[in-house]
This record gives sequence, C-alpha cells and structure tokens, in this order.
Amino acid sequence: MAGDDAKKPKAKASGGKKKEVKKETGLGLSFKKEENFGEWYSEVVVNAEMIEYYDISGCYILRPWTMSIWEIMQAFFDAEIKKMKIKNCYFPLFVSPGVLEKEKDHIEGFAPEVAWVTKSGKSELEVPIAIRPTSETVMYPYYSKWIRGHRDLPLKLNQWCNVVRWEFSNPTPFISFVAFLLFINWHILIFQSYFLLYRAVSFFDKKGILRSQQRKRQTRRRIYEEFLAVPVIKGKKSEMEKFAGGLYTTSVEAFIPNTGRGIQGATSHCLGQNFAKMFEINFENEKGEKAMVWQNSWAYSTRTIGVMVMVHGDDKGLVLPPKVASVQVIVIPVPYKDADTKGIFDACVATIETLCEAGIRAETDFRDNYSPGWKYSHWEMKGVPLRIEIGPKDLANNQVRAVRRDNGTKLDISRDSLVDQVKTMLDNIHQSLFNAAKQKRDACVQVVKTWDEFKEALSQKKLILAPWCDEEEVEQDVKARTKGEMGAAKTLCSPFDQPELPEGTKCFASGKPAKKWTYWGRSY
Amino acid sequence: MAGDDAKKPKAKASGGKKKEVKKETGLGLSFKKEENFGEWYSEVVVNAEMIEYYDISGCYILRPWTMSIWEIMQAFFDAEIKKMKIKNCYFPLFVSPGVLEKEKDHIEGFAPEVAWVTKSGKSELEVPIAIRPTSETVMYPYYSKWIRGHRDLPLKLNQWCNVVRWEFSNPTPFISFVAFLLFINWHILIFQSYFLLYRAVSFFDKKGILRSQQRKRQTRRRIYEEFLAVPVIKGKKSEMEKFAGGLYTTSVEAFIPNTGRGIQGATSHCLGQNFAKMFEINFENEKGEKAMVWQNSWAYSTRTIGVMVMVHGDDKGLVLPPKVASVQVIVIPVPYKDADTKGIFDACVATIETLCEAGIRAETDFRDNYSPGWKYSHWEMKGVPLRIEIGPKDLANNQVRAVRRDNGTKLDISRDSLVDQVKTMLDNIHQSLFNAAKQKRDACVQVVKTWDEFKEALSQKKLILAPWCDEEEVEQDVKARTKGEMGAAKTLCSPFDQPELPEGTKCFASGKPAKKWTYWGRSY
Repeated sequence: MAGDDAKKPKAKASGGKKKEVKKETGLGLSFKKEENFGEWYSEVVVNAEMIEYYDISGCYILRPWTMSIWEIMQAFFDAEIKKMKIKNCYFPLFVSPGVLEKEKDHIEGFAPEVAWVTKSGKSELEVPIAIRPTSETVMYPYYSKWIRGHRDLPLKLNQWCNVVRWEFSNPTPFISFVAFLLFINWHILIFQSYFLLYRAVSFFDKKGILRSQQRKRQTRRRIYEEFLAVPVIKGKKSEMEKFAGGLYTTSVEAFIPNTGRGIQGATSHCLGQNFAKMFEINFENEKGEKAMVWQNSWAYSTRTIGVMVMVHGDDKGLVLPPKVASVQVIVIPVPYKDADTKGIFDACVATIETLCEAGIRAETDFRDNYSPGWKYSHWEMKGVPLRIEIGPKDLANNQVRAVRRDNGTKLDISRDSLVDQVKTMLDNIHQSLFNAAKQKRDACVQVVKTWDEFKEALSQKKLILAPWCDEEEVEQDVKARTKGEMGAAKTLCSPFDQPELPEGTKCFASGKPAKKWTYWGRSY
Repeated sequence: MAGDDAKKPKAKASGGKKKEVKKETGLGLSFKKEENFGEWYSEVVVNAEMIEYYDISGCYILRPWTMSIWEIMQAFFDAEIKKMKIKNCYFPLFVSPGVLEKEKDHIEGFAPEVAWVTKSGKSELEVPIAIRPTSETVMYPYYSKWIRGHRDLPLKLNQWCNVVRWEFSNPTPFISFVAFLLFINWHILIFQSYFLLYRAVSFFDKKGILRSQQRKRQTRRRIYEEFLAVPVIKGKKSEMEKFAGGLYTTSVEAFIPNTGRGIQGATSHCLGQNFAKMFEINFENEKGEKAMVWQNSWAYSTRTIGVMVMVHGDDKGLVLPPKVASVQVIVIPVPYKDADTKGIFDACVATIETLCEAGIRAETDFRDNYSPGWKYSHWEMKGVPLRIEIGPKDLANNQVRAVRRDNGTKLDISRDSLVDQVKTMLDNIHQSLFNAAKQKRDACVQVVKTWDEFKEALSQKKLILAPWCDEEEVEQDVKARTKGEMGAAKTLCSPFDQPELPEGTKCFASGKPAKKWTYWGRSY
C-alpha cells in the first residue's frame, strides 16, 4: 500500500524552470472531455508527449510515445501482410503531372490538395512535379509493365509510405475547433505527411478480389478491436462516399460519442477494372486471350491512433490499451522518511525484471526530483495502463499495489503471483476499455424511419441507422438539407450485418422503397 | 546430380510474349563487369529486379527484391538502436525557409539541392516550403524546446525517413556514364528520395559524444562486414570533406576496384556545439549553471545496397551475401522424360520444409513454362547464394545437388545432413565473398610518398595511402591539379588504424612535415 502523501500531485522545488516543466509534462488538463472535447483533445496529445506542434501549419512531430504505438501496430500488420504473400516495395515520393492526371475521376477528387514542387535551389523546374497525394496513379503504370501473363498474377505489393494532401479548412470563428481539427484529422491535414500502409493488389478476376476484400476487413477489424480496443462497424460506403474512380469502397467505421461524429477507420477500395483500363493493365489468360485485371487497394494510417485517443482518453489524460502501450506497467517507489529506501528501490528493480522476463513492458521511475504523487499524475497523463506502487508496507508484506489507469481500481498483489496477476489485470483492462467504448457507442445508435426522427436524432448527435433507397441524389439532398455550422449529415456505411428490412419499408428521406439499412451522421 | 540438358539456359516456347519476357527476366547480361562497369551495373540492378526506372529523371522504384535486403538490415539496426535506448520519432517532410537557413555553413552545402514546394492545387503558397534535404535543421529547434535540465540528457532520437536532394549532374557525352550515375549514387541522385536511418543525439559533454561516436562506428562496420560482406576502412574525414557545419566527420569507406573509386559507406558527424549555438540548445547543469549540449548525428542509406551490388556482382548478375538474401536457397526440380516427376517435386517440397524449419530462407521454383536451365540462369541473375537441384539420380540416392552462386562449386549432399551442410555452405559463401572482396581491395592499395608516385597511382585507379600535412589548402591544390575527365582526387579518410609515420616524413603533395597517413582517390 502506498503512502497517503502520494495521493495529491505535487512537484518538489527544483530550480527556476520548475513551473515551465510542470506545464510541459502536463500535470492536469485545463479542459474536460465532456465540456470542450476539441480543446481537451489538443491538450491530451501534447501533454501526453505524443505530438509536438511544428512551425509549418498542419504539420506536427510524432514523438516516441506515438511512434511506439505505431510500431507495434505496424509489426502486427507487416507480419500479416507477409503471411498473405504480399511483398513490400517502395515507389518514389514524386509523381509526374501526366501520370497523376491519367484517371480523371480520381484526380478530380485530389487535385486541389496536391502539393507541387516547382523549384530546385533557385532554378525553376521545366515541368512541376507533384508529391504523391495517394499511391494508385504512382504504382499502376508499372503494374502494366510487370504484368504480362496469368502467371504474373496475383501481383501483391504493399508500401509503407507518407502521402501529402493539402486540404483547405474553412476559416471558422471557433479557434478551438480549428486546433481540434489539426490533430484529429490525421488524414486530412493541411500539408500533412503521414505514415501509411499502402497495399495494391491485382487479380485475375472478380472472385479473387472479393476474397481479398473480405480478408482485409478482418485484419482491419483486428487492429481496432484487438489492439486499440475500439469497436467498429464493417460496411460498404455509398456511391458518393466511395474512392474516386473505384467500383466500391468498404470501410470500418468508428464513432466518437462526444462529438456525435463517425470516423472512417480504414478503407478498402475495390477498383474493379477501371484503373486497369486507364493504365492498360492487361494480361494473356490461360486460354491465350487478352484479359484485364481486377484490382483493389487498401490503406490505414496514423489516424487510427487519433481515434484511440478520442475514444478512451479521460480528464486525467491519455488511456492506452495495454496491447499498444510501449510501457504497460510503470513501477514507482514510494519511500517515506526513515523508510528502507534501498529495500524499496531494490524491490522496484526486481519487479520490473520479473515482469520484463515474462514479456511485459515494464519500467521504473526513479527520478529524484519528483514526488511519487507527481509521478502518478505524469504517468496517468501518458496513459500507462497499470501503475505499481511499492512503499514500506508493501515491502514488509512482500506485495505491491497495482492501480488500473482505466478505472482507478487498486489491488494489492503478492510478489509471488506477480506475473499472473499483472497479466490478468492487463487483459481485463483491454476488455473493460472495449466494453465501455462499445456500450457508449451502442447507446448513441438511434433507429429512425422518418425525416423528422432523423432531424431530431441528428441534433442529438446520434449514430443514425435508417432505411435508405440507396440513391445518390437522395444522399445529396440529405446533405443539402442538413448543411449548417456543424457540417452536413452523410452516409457512414451500410453495415454488412444488416437488420431485417420488412417488405414495404420506405426510405426515411425520399419515401421510396428502402433497399438497405444505412448508418448516417456527421463525420470527420 | 542434375541432368546435362539443364546446363544451358533455354526457355521453352510459351506464347508470343516469350522474347520480351526473356529480356525482362534478364537471361544474360549484355555488358561485362570488367569491360563496361557502368552499363553492367545499370543492367544488373534492372535485370535482377531490384530497381525499375521511373518516369521522373533520377527517381526509381525499389522492387521487393531490394526492399527485402533493406528490411533485413533495418531490422538489425532498429534492434541495435533500441538496445542503445535510442527512440524512434517522426518529423515532418517539410521545413520552413527560416529554419533551413539558420545554420549558414550548413545551408550553403545544401542550398542548390533543395526542392521547393510553391503551389497547392492551383494556388501559390505565401511562403514556399522546402522538402527536407537532411534532418539536423528540422529536428534541432525542438531539441531546444525539449531539453531544459541535465535530467533531459542524453536525448537520443532516431528517424527512418526519406530526404530529397536535387543534384546537378554535369552533362556528359558518355550516356553510359550518366545512366551509371543514376543508379550508383543512391545518395546523390537528382530528386532522389531514399530511406535513411537518421539518428540525432544530444549529450552533456564531449566525453559522451566521443563514446557514442565510437559505438556507432562499430555498428556501421558490422552492417558492411557481417551483412554485406564488404570490407571497409574506418577513419576520419578531412576538413574539406566533413559535414557542413559540423566539428568533424568519421566514416566507413568502401572501394570499387573496377572504377578505382572510393565510396563513402556511412557517416557519423560530431557536430560539437555549433548547432547547439545556432539553435540555442541549452540546459541547466547539475551545478545550476547554464550549459550547451554536445551533439552528433549519423546516417546510413540504401546506398549500402548499391555498394554491395558493385563489389560482389559478376557477369552472371547479382551475387547476394547469404545474410541479406530474402531467398538464401532456391530449390529447382530437374525432371526427365519418364522420370518420377511426382517423387522429384515431393522431394523439393520436403527439402524447403526442412530448410525453412531450420530458419533458412528457402523457396522452390515449380513454374511449368520454363526449363531447369532457364531457371538456373534466372536465379543466378537474382543472386541467390545457393541453388539446390533435384533430379532422378538425386532422388534415387537420397541426395540433392547444391551449387554455390559465388564460385559455381557443386556438392552432392545427403538429405540426412541437409541442414548442417547447407548452413556450412552459406557461412562459407559469406566468408569467401568477404575474403575475395578484401583481397581485391587490398591489391588496389598503393603507398606513395611523392607527387609523381601519386599521379602514377591515380592513373592506375589505385586506393592511395599517402603521408599528408593535413592542410586544407593542400587538399584544394591536389584537387585542382588532378581535375580532369575522370574527376579530381580527394581525401577519402585518415584511417584510425594508422601505419607508423617515421619522424621527418614529408607530405607527398606539399613537402611539409606529414601529420598522418591518409587515403586518397577519386570517389562517388
């Protein structure tokens, strides 16, 4: 059991810079998640040392605390990819205008966001060069070259890369909202360059593509649910929301109850044969006839990390699911005056050694210029799932005190059963986080059948499930009718897991016969 | 023992595209390494499917065969980095002009090479943004922010990233030479974006920096010698050749006997306190006084792979050292008419299963549209260290035939001792490659003491070791006096392992008292 004096955060005086340091290491947040979600989010990612603002608007630095999360997910993904016989490659950062503009629908979707290099040193380039806003148009001219016969298929390549898109954010009177966007939409930042898994696969036929689409959905769901403890809905995007130039897009969608916005978690685009046509990706099939490939592409990005922060974070800061935490257990000595300080420190070292040997990522915090209470707050801000405190009483009883980050539950653990109990607690933390997030999200789901119900639910920031006629004009119309300060409503996805749709059900918006259930709402 | 008919490469007829396919999969090279090194190199990297040319001059695609080599080295390095408690981070791709121009000497070195983004979509940017040509100036403003007191030190960050430098290559009448450069200097390509390990460390004091410099040299040597089987010389760069703005630079230097050029393998820059001064990276030391950090930075790039290709490749194509080969053993069935084809194929599968279980990266080539001989040539072109052939006779004798890529040695191996013997052969291949490369390099070393000897050795493309007065003007003078079509001579490095320098020895170029032995030559 740790001492009482450790309960309140306080920093020991240690020189003139203390106040600044205190602010930077983020003891406490100025904003509450429920009250001002945007400011709260901006503060959490900075104070937890995930992000540092950069002197170019829309760019930011991914600090080690973020990178370690990304690396854990990347290692999982890369291994999964290799199991699927997908090979890594690396295409240049630059695209020539001719290639970029080959697929008209596609470039229309990206053109205003493209960054152009026009100068080297002081010289003007003869032809400006674009920085890749995506990867399809970069890769496919070479697919055309590499694919000749049916034996060259499927061609499965992946690249881990950054892409750059300049997005115009509307000037808005709410500064906080701008700042919020800057962090939240890791995907659509002004001149944002982000890490990305980029998979492009070419198959013989539709069957191959369908199988591949399904397999990927599974992997994406696993990243969200098994690693980030975030519940997602798997479904298909509407015609309006699909990838420009593709046949259809599937996605996993998360939902942020605090803002009532959906957030596209990761997408998979079945490109059909459209890009193959534009880029002439033909092959000789087994009968010796000329055929055209079927393609898909697939991406997920550092945006996943933003979703995790928004879903689990609380008023003390970040809350990390154990699977992605680079430090799963932080061990803090709680010495008193006259206590056996050396004995306590030795017990801390022994504790992390035992945990590390069992494959648990554990560290101690032995800094001598901070009180235990200050350290508690510091590591809570950084979201470490489990804190272990060792004080004189713990030492005497051959135990440690374990405190869960997610709900504050305290448990005294005998050092003899340390590994088993810590493992169980970490598993429980993951499950609790997932359950709590699912419960919150499910509580936001509102089934509506009429326009009035829809408007009411939208004003209450619900995740709306409605029967829909699946017509593009109707979605356009809904967008137009809901335009406003908060942004228009749009389809999020039509879930693969469809509730029953009784014959004769009408579309909530058009009154025409409904074809499917679709999730609607505002989104990031 | 494989059949005789397998000895000569030949492709079975299989449709109209055969000829094209044959050319692309690179059966045979048009150029010889000894006769036309530049063309040979360009052909090897393309025919071995390492590189694909790109439609923007100076950019190229790293195909999976290259990426797998890079990933093996990256995995080694990343683990080493983490052992040294260096943490990964990610800084933006872009730099603002103000930051880029902060360190004057430094920017002078890079200014003409910088790529500038001036437009987004169709709009002009108010202020152009540079793409990072290096990382120091990007990172250090934030080091200044993050480092406050001595407890924040050392700050050890690494980033894996691409950087972009536009270099002007002189127009040259020898097309082959231009094409050669495009591939060879993976470091200095026109608008080249390459993978890079980028480590930036800040320490309290000089002692910390010196220790860190030494440790890094060791890691770099290991990459070259233990992974790529390339011998390198560890040494210090001259004042003229050091990193712009730094205190001194150390490097490992490889040498390409065919062209008589040195090639800088990887560098480590001791920046001293110069960047700390420019970027105000101060801290409060243990006595409460204001102090300034000491820094170093360090990089290695995909260039390493180019060096490996140049050193080991031969007239049959690429030769991969086993440690970095994604396929270490290729197993090829050699069925005859009337032979037990199924038995042979089963034996092939059993062989790779046994090898893979033992941690050896083995694959089979069961393609039915190519003859065994064609496959031999194909995998020789791709540089796979060991080929295993299984024919009827091998099946009958419960053996396989193993053929070394590096020297063509054949060995019949009993399937009972497969793993042990293959492991031994792979070890031997590595050692042979290293020894052969070292022998060739050592044969190029020429000790000279006078200007006439120097000129003679330079014309013979030697790696010249000469006593030097260590004066910048003298190096400048040597450069000026050796200027010509082949490029001027310069210092490569002063080896840490210094031969004895008898008192009274004179500088080969100036006649002044010599201070050290230094390697000179032309370089990439």
